[in-house]
Amino acid sequence: MVSPALRMQPADQVSVRRNNLALVLRLLHDVGPRSRAAVAAESGLNKATVSSLVAELIDRGLVREVGTDDRRGLGRPATLLELDGRNVAALGLELNVDFIAALATDLAGREVFHAERPIDAAGWPRQQVVATLTRLAADALAALGPGCSTLSGITVAVPGLVDAEGRAITLAPNLDWRDVDVGHRLAAALGVQAPVSVDNDGNLGALAEYRVGEFAGTPNLIFVSGQTGVGGGIIVDGRLLRGATGFSGEVGHMRMAQDGPVCGCGRQGCWEAFVGLKPLLRAAVPDLASELEANPSLGPEDKIAKVVSRATAGDDVALAGLERHAHWLGTGLATLVNLFNPQVIVLGGFFRDIAPWIIRTAERTMRAETIAPKAGDCILAVSHLGFSAAALGGAIHAAQRVFDDPALVPYVTTAST
Amino acid sequence: MVSPALRMQPADQVSVRRNNLALVLRLLHDVGPRSRAAVAAESGLNKATVSSLVAELIDRGLVREVGTDDRRGLGRPATLLELDGRNVAALGLELNVDFIAALATDLAGREVFHAERPIDAAGWPRQQVVATLTRLAADALAALGPGCSTLSGITVAVPGLVDAEGRAITLAPNLDWRDVDVGHRLAAALGVQAPVSVDNDGNLGALAEYRVGEFAGTPNLIFVSGQTGVGGGIIVDGRLLRGATGFSGEVGHMRMAQDGPVCGCGRQGCWEAFVGLKPLLRAAVPDLASELEANPSLGPEDKIAKVVSRATAGDDVALAGLERHAHWLGTGLATLVNLFNPQVIVLGGFFRDIAPWIIRTAERTMRAETIAPKAGDCILAVSHLGFSAAALGGAIHAAQRVFDDPALVPYVTTAST
Repeated sequence: MVSPALRMQPADQVSVRRNNLALVLRLLHDVGPRSRAAVAAESGLNKATVSSLVAELIDRGLVREVGTDDRRGLGRPATLLELDGRNVAALGLELNVDFIAALATDLAGREVFHAERPIDAAGWPRQQVVATLTRLAADALAALGPGCSTLSGITVAVPGLVDAEGRAITLAPNLDWRDVDVGHRLAAALGVQAPVSVDNDGNLGALAEYRVGEFAGTPNLIFVSGQTGVGGGIIVDGRLLRGATGFSGEVGHMRMAQDGPVCGCGRQGCWEAFVGLKPLLRAAVPDLASELEANPSLGPEDKIAKVVSRATAGDDVALAGLERHAHWLGTGLATLVNLFNPQVIVLGGFFRDIAPWIIRTAERTMRAETIAPKAGDCILAVSHLGFSAAALGGAIHAAQRVFDDPALVPYVTTAST
Repeated sequence: MVSPALRMQPADQVSVRRNNLALVLRLLHDVGPRSRAAVAAESGLNKATVSSLVAELIDRGLVREVGTDDRRGLGRPATLLELDGRNVAALGLELNVDFIAALATDLAGREVFHAERPIDAAGWPRQQVVATLTRLAADALAALGPGCSTLSGITVAVPGLVDAEGRAITLAPNLDWRDVDVGHRLAAALGVQAPVSVDNDGNLGALAEYRVGEFAGTPNLIFVSGQTGVGGGIIVDGRLLRGATGFSGEVGHMRMAQDGPVCGCGRQGCWEAFVGLKPLLRAAVPDLASELEANPSLGPEDKIAKVVSRATAGDDVALAGLERHAHWLGTGLATLVNLFNPQVIVLGGFFRDIAPWIIRTAERTMRAETIAPKAGDCILAVSHLGFSAAALGGAIHAAQRVFDDPALVPYVTTAST
């Protein structure tokens, strides 16, 4: 075991300044507008250093002055600084079974492009899928406009396991893809210099919830997303659980039974074989299920709309199917609570659309099947981030490179406001 | 969300010295004998400070000089220092359904007392159980001898949920105990000033494996222990997973089926209802199971010895029961691997005794039912720490107070060697 003392490393002056630039930028991102004096007080840096760092961040277009704070009523009001970063873009992409999405933001998280397209990843040739994703990414980059000097990065959310380098899909059962180097293919096709990463969609959804969702900052948070399969991402003590080789958080394949319907992974008894999209369609709209599944022009929201429409009309079959779905959902959530004892579980994807019909039974079942009293006070919540939580998480992930090293962004010559 | 910068706190001189004493003591614990110069180099402290800190640690009996390091062959050989701490004791206790254990160590982890006794916690009045545990703890304290000036603490491992303060059992299904303040009762009965803590047995077993087991230092490690129930503790990125309110790691109550045998918690379908001690006895030695369960003079090792003896003799019923047990064990392990992606899972408790008959099937099943190829290279191992891993973890936990603040230990007036 290595002592923590052995992990300390000396920092040279260049890296100290780089770290301090990053510290100030991250502080303004996390806590909102602040005066230079407040930045100094909260960062522990001295005022002269803060002034110099802020000047550089302004020159790089990452920070701007916004009015004054005269609440103190004492002497000259302090000029407030806020994160700007409209010259920086981060692109999140999502590749799923029946849709792709692109969501670009600037460094402050303002959305500058957002689009979704239905696809049929399991039916189309792989090249066609990648080409379609590339076109959508190119549209997003084209929309960034001339004011954007820096692409921080591109991160692609995928429904499966990713290699340790975060470049390739190792295994995506519902796409039936193995060892596909999506990162490399996209980078080559787009001709971008910025890094293109690939990450699990559940992990990126959890990152988005942890950073900008309703329960942002909750240290123990689990994100569970209903897609063709069921994705998940787990925040433990404020950090994304990645495991030894990046294969953690595969909630969809928890073993729930020794038999039951066949899962996309080929096994029986996986949680997603009970609570994924296909079993829901078959139980709630059995007469439409085959047709919906076979229609590649329909995205997941179109399919789930049929269930919602029947349930709204009080259709008995739909309501019974939803009730059974809710029970299985709660059973799996109980295992997650027994193992992780989170403050909150956020439901995303299509679980959001059917929440009015499933949330009470799912919560009741979760509480009944958890060993801790009242499920350890775990809140069961519904995502406010919409179907594109994973793409948004991708953009947040892609923006990190500039937060880590603001000096990557060139100086701006014209005023950016 | 609070910026990391806001969490920094100033340290006064007293606390700086206290922190540095702790740093040097921990470093000598973690890396073994070192010269003063090496301690300075590895801690980042200057040599004069290290000399002063070491002098104080020697005066408190926590460090001693041991020979010289003349491997360098240059000039005067350096005197080596090592952790001593024979004047400090830490006591780990374990309270389980059919046995109690006590294990005391000095600060360097040398065992100074170890005993186990069979009990019948579910059958005896609660007062009798606590009184029996108190007597064993008193025996342990009496055995410490006059050289021991400081009791760092007592930590009790219990098979259930513990309150946020680590003093009381909130719920222990297999004991049928709710809200029992074991920590307070023990402290009062023993009349000790040192803190008496209570923690989950799986958590403490995992701590012992992470600190001194065969896979010590492995950042992502899961400990799964076969007892009356099945306990577990989970190390994520080198830290024990505790969750929002300390109720995490309840692996025994993962939902494995919608029906099946009734669990000690009253539900059906919990993992421990398939892989705990009772289902094993009923499947492997059905003619003896009732008698073994009813005999309070038998500890878990006596009971499991009957299974081992039949299996060794090639008894078909025993072998079939073990095979089925191994399969259910592997199924639950697959869920743990899917969620946590650990480097290693260490099996403790009675799983250790039956390992020769279950380990291959359990591993094969775990790999077959995990979504990541080859279960993400997870190793399935057997604990070397014996039945008392949780008590040992208790002692490690109890020793932490002195590692955190070595100045708690009084100066020694006579030589302790």
